[in-house]
Amino acid sequence: MSLIYLLDLCAVAVCAITATLEAQRRELDLFGVTVIAVIAGIGGGTLRDILLGRLPVYWINDPIYVVVGITAAMLTFFIRRKINIPRNFFLLPDAVGLALFTVIGTSIAMNMQVNWFIAALMGVVTGVFGGVIRDILCNEVPLIFRTDIYATAALAGALLLITLDSLGMDHHLAVIVAMGTIILGRLAAIRWHIHLPRFHRHEQ
Amino acid sequence: MSLIYLLDLCAVAVCAITATLEAQRRELDLFGVTVIAVIAGIGGGTLRDILLGRLPVYWINDPIYVVVGITAAMLTFFIRRKINIPRNFFLLPDAVGLALFTVIGTSIAMNMQVNWFIAALMGVVTGVFGGVIRDILCNEVPLIFRTDIYATAALAGALLLITLDSLGMDHHLAVIVAMGTIILGRLAAIRWHIHLPRFHRHEQ
Amino acid sequence: MSLIYLLDLCAVAVCAITATLEAQRRELDLFGVTVIAVIAGIGGGTLRDILLGRLPVYWINDPIYVVVGITAAMLTFFIRRKINIPRNFFLLPDAVGLALFTVIGTSIAMNMQVNWFIAALMGVVTGVFGGVIRDILCNEVPLIFRTDIYATAALAGALLLITLDSLGMDHHLAVIVAMGTIILGRLAAIRWHIHLPRFHRHEQ
Repeated sequence: MSLIYLLDLCAVAVCAITATLEAQRRELDLFGVTVIAVIAGIGGGTLRDILLGRLPVYWINDPIYVVVGITAAMLTFFIRRKINIPRNFFLLPDAVGLALFTVIGTSIAMNMQVNWFIAALMGVVTGVFGGVIRDILCNEVPLIFRTDIYATAALAGALLLITLDSLGMDHHLAVIVAMGTIILGRLAAIRWHIHLPRFHRHEQ
Repeated sequence: MSLIYLLDLCAVAVCAITATLEAQRRELDLFGVTVIAVIAGIGGGTLRDILLGRLPVYWINDPIYVVVGITAAMLTFFIRRKINIPRNFFLLPDAVGLALFTVIGTSIAMNMQVNWFIAALMGVVTGVFGGVIRDILCNEVPLIFRTDIYATAALAGALLLITLDSLGMDHHLAVIVAMGTIILGRLAAIRWHIHLPRFHRHEQ
Repeated sequence: MSLIYLLDLCAVAVCAITATLEAQRRELDLFGVTVIAVIAGIGGGTLRDILLGRLPVYWINDPIYVVVGITAAMLTFFIRRKINIPRNFFLLPDAVGLALFTVIGTSIAMNMQVNWFIAALMGVVTGVFGGVIRDILCNEVPLIFRTDIYATAALAGALLLITLDSLGMDHHLAVIVAMGTIILGRLAAIRWHIHLPRFHRHEQ
């Protein structure tokens, strides 16, 4: 579990960093950027814990998550003033973070013996809701509702993890396969602009 | 209880359908529309359960609610591309949904022996907060804060249900009277543009 | 505890009043203004209780908080139509409310034996999140992310309270010192426009 824990902290940091870069487009002060970054990092898991009734939420008894989020946001805030970090620098870490959060959320829900469908949903919630709350705080329609396959990749990975697990595959191997699927799905969607059907303005 | 259960599922579907029609005004993809529609359908009851401490929230152990929401949203998404559904087609189902959610939320809170005033509030939360979250996700000031009597009708119905119940009326009959009041109040408000006092721009 | 309780109710009222004045800039009806005002008053403590797992949330079993919020909002709504209340009339009450909510939230978390850092965070959440939710409902980037030192004053006061408490100072005295720090910090920030580093548009 300790590797998963380390990777989980890395995912929080990546979320906080990308949220800081996002938030810079608005005229926010250091505090605002930090709060939004931390919420982006821990928001998905927090909502999952509330819905499942796992209270107090996970970071209350393990504040290292919040500390990692704050540190990552502040470093990014000040480094960003000196160096121009290209956005697509974080596309791969972001995909890894999505994959990690999704398999962790799905695994936690599976351990609580909930229905497989709800377990997959909890994985998606863990993976994407930090970003949703970030966008709401920044007063934008959440990116994942408008963008290339993102939550869909998380959902596919979560369902794959559950299927492999129910077929008796070793859990660690199933986790790796599911994460690989999410990362590749996400990167392929970015590379070839794959997206789901949309309402277009001229159709209205 | 099985009729209530069926009606509850219908209310989730109606909420999801109207949310899909709402969301079409933004350029959202199928995933975004579906998520917003499901949240609109189950969001009010979810917030009620969290506030009351009824965790895990109701749809964790009964995923049919989520399935109904997803199905209704997807069907509407694709049908909408072929056929133009007039908005006011859903005014009556929407009023029925509001009434149902309100009496269900009020009844649940009454069973938990909370104060009558809090029970009425929980009814209103169940009835209207799905729509509030929907509007926040669509980046709009929630409609119920700007519109004709909506939550007020829900509040009146919830208070009526509690009053009739405390007077010893049969619970099923009280539910029907309260629902009728909400539906008629809502339709009357739409028909004659009844609304509460407002701040007007020229008064500022 | 009864003085704290009374002050807590006053803080809810102040939050509701300032939220009503805020909300007047949008064309909201009486219901919308009231709901936003009540949520501004009780939202911070509600989120704190959910995160800590203190369910049902505090006002479910003590509806006086909601009643105070509704009354304050309605009175303000109607008085505001007759009399022009200057905004800075509420700067001091607002600072007192922030200080009160923060020390109450911090004290509650400390009593639950959580980590000192999380206790301070819970104080800040209690102090500022009502305003955050208010701004989200009004479709604005939350003021505290853009403004002069506000949450930072709350954080400083919460940390001071915890430090003094761990040094063995009488809890009531520590509360007064912490509150004084928050109020003075907040007023000083307003007076001299002290603020944290910001991203500026021309830096982008």
